[in-house]
Amino acid sequence: MPTDLKYLAVHTMTNKPWTLRQCVDAYSQAGIGGVSVWRNVIEPIGVDEAARMLKDSGMKVPALVRGGFFPAATSSDRQKAIDENRQIIDEAAAIGAEMVVLVVGAVPGMSLAEARKYVADGIGALLPQAVDRNIKLAIEPLHPMYAGDKSCINRMREAREVCEQLRSRMVGIAVDVYHVWWDPDLQAEIELAGKQHTLFGLHICDWRLNTRDLLTDRGLMGDGCIDINKICGWARAAGFKGLDEVEVFSDNYWAMDQDEYLKLIVERYQGLNV
Amino acid sequence: MPTDLKYLAVHTMTNKPWTLRQCVDAYSQAGIGGVSVWRNVIEPIGVDEAARMLKDSGMKVPALVRGGFFPAATSSDRQKAIDENRQIIDEAAAIGAEMVVLVVGAVPGMSLAEARKYVADGIGALLPQAVDRNIKLAIEPLHPMYAGDKSCINRMREAREVCEQLRSRMVGIAVDVYHVWWDPDLQAEIELAGKQHTLFGLHICDWRLNTRDLLTDRGLMGDGCIDINKICGWARAAGFKGLDEVEVFSDNYWAMDQDEYLKLIVERYQGLNV
Repeated sequence: MPTDLKYLAVHTMTNKPWTLRQCVDAYSQAGIGGVSVWRNVIEPIGVDEAARMLKDSGMKVPALVRGGFFPAATSSDRQKAIDENRQIIDEAAAIGAEMVVLVVGAVPGMSLAEARKYVADGIGALLPQAVDRNIKLAIEPLHPMYAGDKSCINRMREAREVCEQLRSRMVGIAVDVYHVWWDPDLQAEIELAGKQHTLFGLHICDWRLNTRDLLTDRGLMGDGCIDINKICGWARAAGFKGLDEVEVFSDNYWAMDQDEYLKLIVERYQGLNV
Repeated sequence: MPTDLKYLAVHTMTNKPWTLRQCVDAYSQAGIGGVSVWRNVIEPIGVDEAARMLKDSGMKVPALVRGGFFPAATSSDRQKAIDENRQIIDEAAAIGAEMVVLVVGAVPGMSLAEARKYVADGIGALLPQAVDRNIKLAIEPLHPMYAGDKSCINRMREAREVCEQLRSRMVGIAVDVYHVWWDPDLQAEIELAGKQHTLFGLHICDWRLNTRDLLTDRGLMGDGCIDINKICGWARAAGFKGLDEVEVFSDNYWAMDQDEYLKLIVERYQGLNV
């Protein structure tokens, strides 16, 4: 059974060469159910036009990407990060997004444990606004290879611990298979996130063997070694009802004709059994 | 207080352009206490000559690197891996090494959990010989970015679980800060390994921010973000009495004059407080 495209969302960054207009038109025409929006495609046109465009399309907008980067050496820099995130939450509300994805940050020379405290503090400070705007905040655990300066949360467990500390229906987890597929606790943590109602997002792509670059060499589903069907199955079993978001950073795919690439994305998605 | 060079060992792969002869002469002359030997430098001269050379040097030989790669799709391929490891254990005994470091392997398309069963089976099959030759087998957890095809053991916990299953004084763990520095359970697992007498090896190097390559862009101590003093302190507190082994794969450093590079290694090691 091919997977129904209404359950598919594509991140604008996946088609990096395209404007938001081009993404929205192409995804709509393909019958894709949702679009997750990176801030760089809003910037040239402004949030009002982006909001109109997305509303007119009728597509769902699972996520605005990305907020976060809470840890910093000084309290004034930490406050700056919180202020920046407030603006991002407002943007998310304006474009009708369900959640803001948080890449939580890390600071070289600061222990990851200390950084995680600032993450919890930062998200905590945003909660009243998130509740008011009805915008969920989704912590995205990033692969340990990003622990140096991008994320002090590298497994679902540390994301869960922040959720358990903050105890808000607006704080949860975005699970990206690229980052967490290797985690021996993944199935148990997904089950637990289901029970705790924190399974907010599910990002799919693949881990290429012989990955050439730590940032821009992700694979499309089927290019690599991740058992995507299995992980998506765990999420479904845990009650996840959101869209399957395709988020791929890839110099190779960005160099392709993007219409051809989108056909390939659709084909690969329909080849899954999720 | 500069760190005493008698506690330092260098892996021959760190000075990849050098032969074993060059490594042994240069390390001895610098007053370095140990040399861990990669099999590629034995191959051109044979194990007897390597053994003589090492014995004459008076240096300790913490490890022969590397055995492992146990998981395979067929039982005959798994048996081949075991046979290969038998030869490696004999080589280790011949050169007077204390342990064989095991990079345990992984097979794309096989779940990491299944692969770990084959790892335990494989090591179990080697135990009588390891006991007979008095060669320790040290499981090296590899960074999750190597889970695709190099190692199904990516945290100390999974290494510990194999040790707990096999319950042999000859099976333990080689902790390389590059692979495990990010693990929130690291301190607890090192403590536990101390109690379980499985802390066999300690490899030091650094994680470069903006790492350019997944294999050959490691940093020398001080080049990156790992708190080496802290991790080595945990190992000391857990009773680790072995040498600090410098293992760095780096195209950049391999391109340097290797005598100058060795001076830098010594300088960086003496700058630690471990």
